[in-house]
Amino acid sequence: MTKPCILCCAITGSVPTKANNPAVPTTIAEQVESSLAAIEAGASIIHAHVRNEDETPSSDPEKFARLQEELRKHAPEAILQFSTGGRSGAGHERGGMLSLRPDMASLSVGSNNFPTRVYENSPDLVAWLASEMVKYEITPEIEAFDLSHILQAIRLHSEGTLFGKLYVQFVMGVKNAMPADKEVFDYYVQMMKSRAPNAEWCAAGIGPNQIVVNEWAIAAGGHTRA
Amino acid sequence: MTKPCILCCAITGSVPTKANNPAVPTTIAEQVESSLAAIEAGASIIHAHVRNEDETPSSDPEKFARLQEELRKHAPEAILQFSTGGRSGAGHERGGMLSLRPDMASLSVGSNNFPTRVYENSPDLVAWLASEMVKYEITPEIEAFDLSHILQAIRLHSEGTLFGKLYVQFVMGVKNAMPADKEVFDYYVQMMKSRAPNAEWCAAGIGPNQIVVNEWAIAAGGHTRA
Ligand SMILES: [Zn+2]
Ligand SMILES: [Zn+2]
Ligand SMILES: [Zn+2]
Ligand SMILES: [Zn+2]
Repeated sequence: MTKPCILCCAITGSVPTKANNPAVPTTIAEQVESSLAAIEAGASIIHAHVRNEDETPSSDPEKFARLQEELRKHAPEAILQFSTGGRSGAGHERGGMLSLRPDMASLSVGSNNFPTRVYENSPDLVAWLASEMVKYEITPEIEAFDLSHILQAIRLHSEGTLFGKLYVQFVMGVKNAMPADKEVFDYYVQMMKSRAPNAEWCAAGIGPNQIVVNEWAIAAGGHTRA
Repeated sequence: MTKPCILCCAITGSVPTKANNPAVPTTIAEQVESSLAAIEAGASIIHAHVRNEDETPSSDPEKFARLQEELRKHAPEAILQFSTGGRSGAGHERGGMLSLRPDMASLSVGSNNFPTRVYENSPDLVAWLASEMVKYEITPEIEAFDLSHILQAIRLHSEGTLFGKLYVQFVMGVKNAMPADKEVFDYYVQMMKSRAPNAEWCAAGIGPNQIVVNEWAIAAGGHTRA
């Protein structure tokens, strides 16, 4: 029996606007339509960011609630994953939608550089977001921008700090963080296999690295983000 | 012929005070005495932080100048390395002593978590510190708190952004950053050998990991920090 590959679709992300790509869904109506198309095409997880009227990133729980309500109604089988990423807000704002109890939420467990700034995830904020996910029974997807984030996720999970099954995403190709590097990818996979054999892992390549990293992940028996 | 192992002595660091350890040298006079003892005992590099009167970390160039003047006079063969670490100041303050032209200075090329906060090294600050080191002909010691920092250092060096020979220090055992992990250490060494064969590397274990990491580094043919 072969193991199914979970496809996660990040319908919107936090950066691109319609000026960059007219197909980017930024209203809730567009996001519902785009999510349903992705689910129809085979996606199991919808990774969601919401936007303000002017297309800037938002962490407004009311917007997440509308998206969730629509998707629960039209695609009850889909796994909903809300972003708690740092581009949409600061501090506890980033977890304001967790009380909606989505199936999953993204969680960074360390800090790193982004192309032009520091992606800040202080130990206190990480602990608070993880505890909110325990409270609302939300499985985190750990966003691993570097090797120590993987080790930190394994440690936190073994300590009982992370709800549910350990699910780690390798993020590669962000400038000034980990590049899309096949040797490092292989090392990440080996690390997961040897130290967290019951966990699942997926991988995301940013921008032009997307298809390449998709192929690596699928070939290595992992899950993947499109 | 065997390759010599370079011993770097961090005489003071930025955290411990005399309340933690009465032997920590915090005045310039104490630091000169301690440096000379370390050099006498075999240290080639003196990694220096300076302190305020109340023992809190300082980035005062005048204090660094006094330390440098004394050490140049009494131990002209010693390699002086000034810390540009983030505990002693913020932004350009961290590089205010570079115009003194020490032989080396520490340089972080990425951000990561520390035990209770984010260690912020924004891309702009990294670029500025590196350019100041080029201007004053100072060889950086790259402080690698995670795997991507090693790859970033190799990339920056190949682009000509880092003065002199590439010199990378693996920092292990800081809570919420990379733990002192022998498998990861071995991977770091392999990465340096395969991608930067002309570079030198050393390793530092924090707190109780110090002796362990010293032994790993010496056995693997690297340099080490005590
Ligand atoms: Zn996202
Ligand atoms: Zn509807
Ligand atoms: Zn230091
Ligand atoms: Zn003197």
